[in-house]
Amino acid sequence: MGLDEVAQKPHDRLSAWLAADMEAVNQMIRDRMASEHAPRIPQVTAHLVEAGGKRLRPLLTLAAARLCGYDGPYHIHLAATVEFIHTATLLHDDVVDESAQRRGRPTANLLWDNKSSVLVGDYLFARSFQLMTETGSMRVMNILANASATIAEGEVLQLTAAQDLATTEAIYLQVVRGKTAALFSAATEVGGVIAGSDEAQVQALYTYGDALGIAFQIVDDLLDYGGTTAVIGKNTGDDFRERKLTLPVIKAVAQADADERAFWQRTIAKGDQRDGDLEQALAIMARHGAMEAARADALGWAAKAKVALAVLPDHPIRAMLADLADYVVARIN
Amino acid sequence: MGLDEVAQKPHDRLSAWLAADMEAVNQMIRDRMASEHAPRIPQVTAHLVEAGGKRLRPLLTLAAARLCGYDGPYHIHLAATVEFIHTATLLHDDVVDESAQRRGRPTANLLWDNKSSVLVGDYLFARSFQLMTETGSMRVMNILANASATIAEGEVLQLTAAQDLATTEAIYLQVVRGKTAALFSAATEVGGVIAGSDEAQVQALYTYGDALGIAFQIVDDLLDYGGTTAVIGKNTGDDFRERKLTLPVIKAVAQADADERAFWQRTIAKGDQRDGDLEQALAIMARHGAMEAARADALGWAAKAKVALAVLPDHPIRAMLADLADYVVARIN
Repeated sequence: MGLDEVAQKPHDRLSAWLAADMEAVNQMIRDRMASEHAPRIPQVTAHLVEAGGKRLRPLLTLAAARLCGYDGPYHIHLAATVEFIHTATLLHDDVVDESAQRRGRPTANLLWDNKSSVLVGDYLFARSFQLMTETGSMRVMNILANASATIAEGEVLQLTAAQDLATTEAIYLQVVRGKTAALFSAATEVGGVIAGSDEAQVQALYTYGDALGIAFQIVDDLLDYGGTTAVIGKNTGDDFRERKLTLPVIKAVAQADADERAFWQRTIAKGDQRDGDLEQALAIMARHGAMEAARADALGWAAKAKVALAVLPDHPIRAMLADLADYVVARIN
Repeated sequence: MGLDEVAQKPHDRLSAWLAADMEAVNQMIRDRMASEHAPRIPQVTAHLVEAGGKRLRPLLTLAAARLCGYDGPYHIHLAATVEFIHTATLLHDDVVDESAQRRGRPTANLLWDNKSSVLVGDYLFARSFQLMTETGSMRVMNILANASATIAEGEVLQLTAAQDLATTEAIYLQVVRGKTAALFSAATEVGGVIAGSDEAQVQALYTYGDALGIAFQIVDDLLDYGGTTAVIGKNTGDDFRERKLTLPVIKAVAQADADERAFWQRTIAKGDQRDGDLEQALAIMARHGAMEAARADALGWAAKAKVALAVLPDHPIRAMLADLADYVVARIN
């Protein structure tokens, strides 16, 4: 292996290894996005689907299927299914969060309107549903139905947990499964199922995707506070302003003294935020080592993901998946 | 048959005949609406699901299954599935249309917020997806996946068709299939499929549901202009104000002279509406017999629905379904 290959990110190495499959997935996405009757649909979705997203979820499905020796056509359908579900949730999130930017482009919400975001999201869900039925596998349908329920439940739970200082780490974990890990684990699990792998391997793929997704989301939440350096960057503090109870805040709240508790009460529970509050929040979290503790949790989940891979075939893809778990948490060095 | 029974509406007769099944459906809806992790979900859905809606769609599924001699448990799952899909689309419509009232109660949108409406709608879609997988029937999944795509596509099409005077009757029909008929036809078709009926009967159930749904929606659209009497009631004119191209308007636009065309251009295309415009619209539609022509179309679809029933078993439910088709269009006498 040359230096170039070593230096490449594991995600890029997976993309390169699975390039032909990925091209088939992209083609299927383009085909199934089209609507004979409603040309607005590809207009709304194109800038999301074509925006050069990392395509991490479909890559996971392709990787799982190929790692398990699959040689049929349906991993392509399932990878496209997973990307459609992801894109649909992004569209619905845009309505929900009134977020102004996604992947660096104007959101569908601003480019179009709430109506289009909701309905085109529904259209993509329906398309994903059609794609998965084409596999003819009831087990795949079951996995994706359960993942859909976990995703929706987690999103609703996130609404009710926001601004609530009583939010526990257990609730945070359910929210994170809904936001990220449920689709990661479904993506890897269906890859193993379509390949006809044995139960231990299918379970391992589920565990890998679940743990990878949780690590990924904890890191995302840490990066929203500038990682562990507690330096405020230009994209820092969105979660604080939106009064989200993410892991570092939950850990800091759990150890808060009376003054700190009053601070969280005012800024998160009541939403009365002033200049300097974000810096103050970072200082409180640093005082309790909340960022380091959250990072340790992320490392633990990444380790769990790698351990799960042991029962899977010894294969270059397996090594890349292990590296991917390391890479996901390395973002917060 | 006593006078009471003759006088009863066919929908009520179906409800009475299928009372035990309907109770099982209601119980399943209550059970599956619940969310261990997100108690807001039943709070949002309860006032919709419990609001005493007519439960027409689950009744159609139960009726189709029983008419075809089904004796298993899964027609209950499918009826609950269909009602969940219907309720989810109502929730998403509330976001979309900013409609202030639905079924005479405050909408979820006003009681809660856009976020809850979108996400709880997604949750009900996911729940319906889980329910249908429990039947173990890939064919049922296929039918419902295709119906979901038609519904979503029709909703998006309705967005783009609104305010567009070039909207044709063919486009209107696609919108109506999305809004109403696709779920009606899926509701009846899956009833036949789960009962293991032969292809001719399954096709007949599809055709009945499709034609009934189209007749139902044309009548709804007519009633929005006060039916064929052109008398303005308290709920008249919503579609006009929302600049929707419904069938009577499409028919009137197709026959418009220059002055009338300018009127439609100003009120529907540009949205510049003044006092007296609704009365003027009604007068123009009356001049061209647009309401009567739309009513004739509705009667045609009801007749098509009844004809389709011929290949189905001779059974009291079949007679009630035939009466239901008549009743749907009798609303505009």
